Amino acid sequence: MATQKRVSSVEMSPSEARWITLKKITYTDPDGKNRPWEMAERKTRSSSGVDAVAILAILRSRKNTFPPSTVVIEQYRPPIDKICIELPAGLIDEGETAESTAIRELHEETGYTADRVLDSTPVIVSDPGMTNANMKLVTVSVWLEDELQHPQPNLEPGEYIVTKVVPLAELHDTLEEYSKNGCMVDARLSHFAVGYQFAQKIKDDALP
Amino acid sequence: MATQKRVSSVEMSPSEARWITLKKITYTDPDGKNRPWEMAERKTRSSSGVDAVAILAILRSRKNTFPPSTVVIEQYRPPIDKICIELPAGLIDEGETAESTAIRELHEETGYTADRVLDSTPVIVSDPGMTNANMKLVTVSVWLEDELQHPQPNLEPGEYIVTKVVPLAELHDTLEEYSKNGCMVDARLSHFAVGYQFAQKIKDDALP
Repeated sequence: MATQKRVSSVEMSPSEARWITLKKITYTDPDGKNRPWEMAERKTRSSSGVDAVAILAILRSRKNTFPPSTVVIEQYRPPIDKICIELPAGLIDEGETAESTAIRELHEETGYTADRVLDSTPVIVSDPGMTNANMKLVTVSVWLEDELQHPQPNLEPGEYIVTKVVPLAELHDTLEEYSKNGCMVDARLSHFAVGYQFAQKIKDDALP
Repeated sequence: MATQKRVSSVEMSPSEARWITLKKITYTDPDGKNRPWEMAERKTRSSSGVDAVAILAILRSRKNTFPPSTVVIEQYRPPIDKICIELPAGLIDEGETAESTAIRELHEETGYTADRVLDSTPVIVSDPGMTNANMKLVTVSVWLEDELQHPQPNLEPGEYIVTKVVPLAELHDTLEEYSKNGCMVDARLSHFAVGYQFAQKIKDDALP
C-alpha cells in the first residue's frame, strides 16, 4: 500500500465547503450578557439528529479458545495526516437507527457479524467546545464458535481500513504501543481503554 | 443562575474568526491519486503541540468513608446550546506540561488538590475525521483524610462551572440520568464510563 500523505492545505470559505461551515454564535451568559463563540459545524446531519455511531464489538469464543477481545481499525485521517487507531464507526444513513448502523458498519468495515446489541449510549458529543458533532457508542456481541476468524470486510471504494483484534485486557498497552510507533489514537477509544484498565486495577487493589 | 442560551448563529469567514479556521486538504490515497478533504482547525496551539488536557481525578478517603470517586463538571457549551457533562479540562499554557496543567486546572475548576499523577496518555485526537484537535488525559490521585470535602474552586471571570463528585461504580448510570434530564454528555467521558462498567461486568461474569 502506497503511503498516504497530505500534499497541500489551504484556507477555504464556508461557501466553498461542502461538508463543514464556520459559525459565530452569540449566547447569553448567566449574568444576562451577550457573549460570542466560534464553532465549526457539519452541513450534513440526518433527520435522526445523530451524526455517527462508533461500534464496540465484543468478540468471544464459545469454546474459550481466545480471551474476550475487541476490534480496532487503522485508518489514514487527512485532518491529522497520520494513521489513526479508532473503533469502527460510520455515519447514520437516512431512515437508519444507530443500532442498525452499528451492525451494518461493523460487517462492512471488519467482516464480523454481530448477533445482538448489548448497550447503546445516549447521544454524546465529541468536542463540545469547538463543534456540535455528535454520536452514539453501540456495544455489540460477536460470538465465534471456536478459534478467532478473520473475515473479509466489504469496503467501499476509497476506504482503506485495516482491522486488528485486540484482547480487552491488553487494549490500554496496545494503544500506547501504537502511539510509540507514530500512529495517533482516537481520544474516545483511549478513554474507553483507560476506564477498562482502571476498573481492573481498582478491583485488584493495584492502584498506587 | 440565569439560563444560558444561544441567541443567534451566523456563518462567518475564516478571516473574521479568531480561534478557528476552515481548511481544504489535499492528500494522496494509497493508489497515488490526489483527493480532497475538508477540516476545521484551531488557530491557537502552544509550542507543546498539544491543545488541551482532561483530568480524571480519583478521590479516595484514607479512612474509607466514601467509595473511590471522580469529579465531573457541568458547563454550558455554546456549540451544542446545552449543559455538557465533562471531565475537568483546560488548555495548556505556553511552557506548561500536560501534567502540570492537569494539577493546576483541577484546582482552579474544582478546588481539589492532586497529590500525584497516576497516568498520562500519549497525545490523542478528539474527532480526527473533522478536526486536528488533540489532547492528553491525565489521571491524578486526590487523597482525603476522612469524609468528602467540597472545596471552593477559583473560577476565572466568565467561567460558570458546577462540580459534582460521582462514585466510579455509579458513573455510567449517573451519565445516563444526566442525558435523560436534558444535559449532553461528552463522548470521551462516556467512553471512559462504558469501559469502566464493562470491565466490572466481565470480571463479575455478568455479560449477557
